[in-house]
Amino acid sequence: MKIILIGASGTIGRAIDNELKDRHQIVRVGRNSGELQVDITDLASIRRLFEQTGRFDALISAAGNGHFGPLEELTAKEFAVGLDDKLMGQVNLVLIGREFANDGASFTLTSGVLSEDPIRFGSALSMVNAAVDGFVRGAAIELPRGLRINSVSPTILEESLPGYGPYFRGFKAVPAATVALAYAKSAEGRQTGQVYRVL
Amino acid sequence: MKIILIGASGTIGRAIDNELKDRHQIVRVGRNSGELQVDITDLASIRRLFEQTGRFDALISAAGNGHFGPLEELTAKEFAVGLDDKLMGQVNLVLIGREFANDGASFTLTSGVLSEDPIRFGSALSMVNAAVDGFVRGAAIELPRGLRINSVSPTILEESLPGYGPYFRGFKAVPAATVALAYAKSAEGRQTGQVYRVL
Repeated sequence: MKIILIGASGTIGRAIDNELKDRHQIVRVGRNSGELQVDITDLASIRRLFEQTGRFDALISAAGNGHFGPLEELTAKEFAVGLDDKLMGQVNLVLIGREFANDGASFTLTSGVLSEDPIRFGSALSMVNAAVDGFVRGAAIELPRGLRINSVSPTILEESLPGYGPYFRGFKAVPAATVALAYAKSAEGRQTGQVYRVL
Repeated sequence: MKIILIGASGTIGRAIDNELKDRHQIVRVGRNSGELQVDITDLASIRRLFEQTGRFDALISAAGNGHFGPLEELTAKEFAVGLDDKLMGQVNLVLIGREFANDGASFTLTSGVLSEDPIRFGSALSMVNAAVDGFVRGAAIELPRGLRINSVSPTILEESLPGYGPYFRGFKAVPAATVALAYAKSAEGRQTGQVYRVL
């Protein structure tokens, strides 16, 4: 399959690349690195990306930022960061990418454990992650031509513990390589409308 | 208790009013009706509302629009309707309203069954409803001064069947009066971080 991998240079992206590269053609995309670049907060940038990639069989997004900080300091502006980037950035990859998707192609987005298991400073990400999962459930039943869509909702990565461990006390971390399996299940399987929780 | 009821003239709002009015002081708020008016998509309008209501013990929001239509026709613009209104409108009621909330006050927002049980034409609402629930879970653990927050996630109302019944075939409708009980549980109980599904 020809797989577009957004966020290819990130911790999860590299693990997905490792998991899939021996079986598929991977088009590696990053904000500033990779074979092609995209700013997922910019509709024109997304369209330009797909005009460069051409048709594809799977799109995997392991990209998207959100604001992390105390609820007390959050205003609409901080919530907008994740809404514009991790949520609508990924949704727009689907809304625009579907024009370039081969019949039966799959979309796999990234959400995260905070949707259901909140931590201090995480309320904007709890909101955005839940929204990604809700979109996936809703879109799955309307996509035409056998197009599929799932999300992967990982817990804290072992690789991220040095930076984020103090915020995730008591969470069992998983290696990125384990998280990558869920993206393979989504892209190489036939399920749709699923939220793959990797805990 | 002094309860601010946003969306007081809607089908759910009137049922909430009926359920609570004999036990509490209700400040009825609508977009164009009620004792006070607010446009929840406008931060200045929200702030003006609370300057008029003064301090309160419970805020209940049964307000918020989203786009309903075929996924095929949806672009970022249609998704923005629900993000700006039903999602961030309600979130901003909390972010601004917290300044006016008495210690131990509660916020109760409205999401909906589509977050988990999608229907055709509902993908933008699946996304927005899930986001409201995710925000509630995240915010609940960070609110200070004993402030609480829950959401009510109702299925299709019996009263809404004439208009929306054809889109909800196979769903068991519930009367608005039953849905109103969940708002009473949220405002008059002591739970927080809960999504009350009324199915």
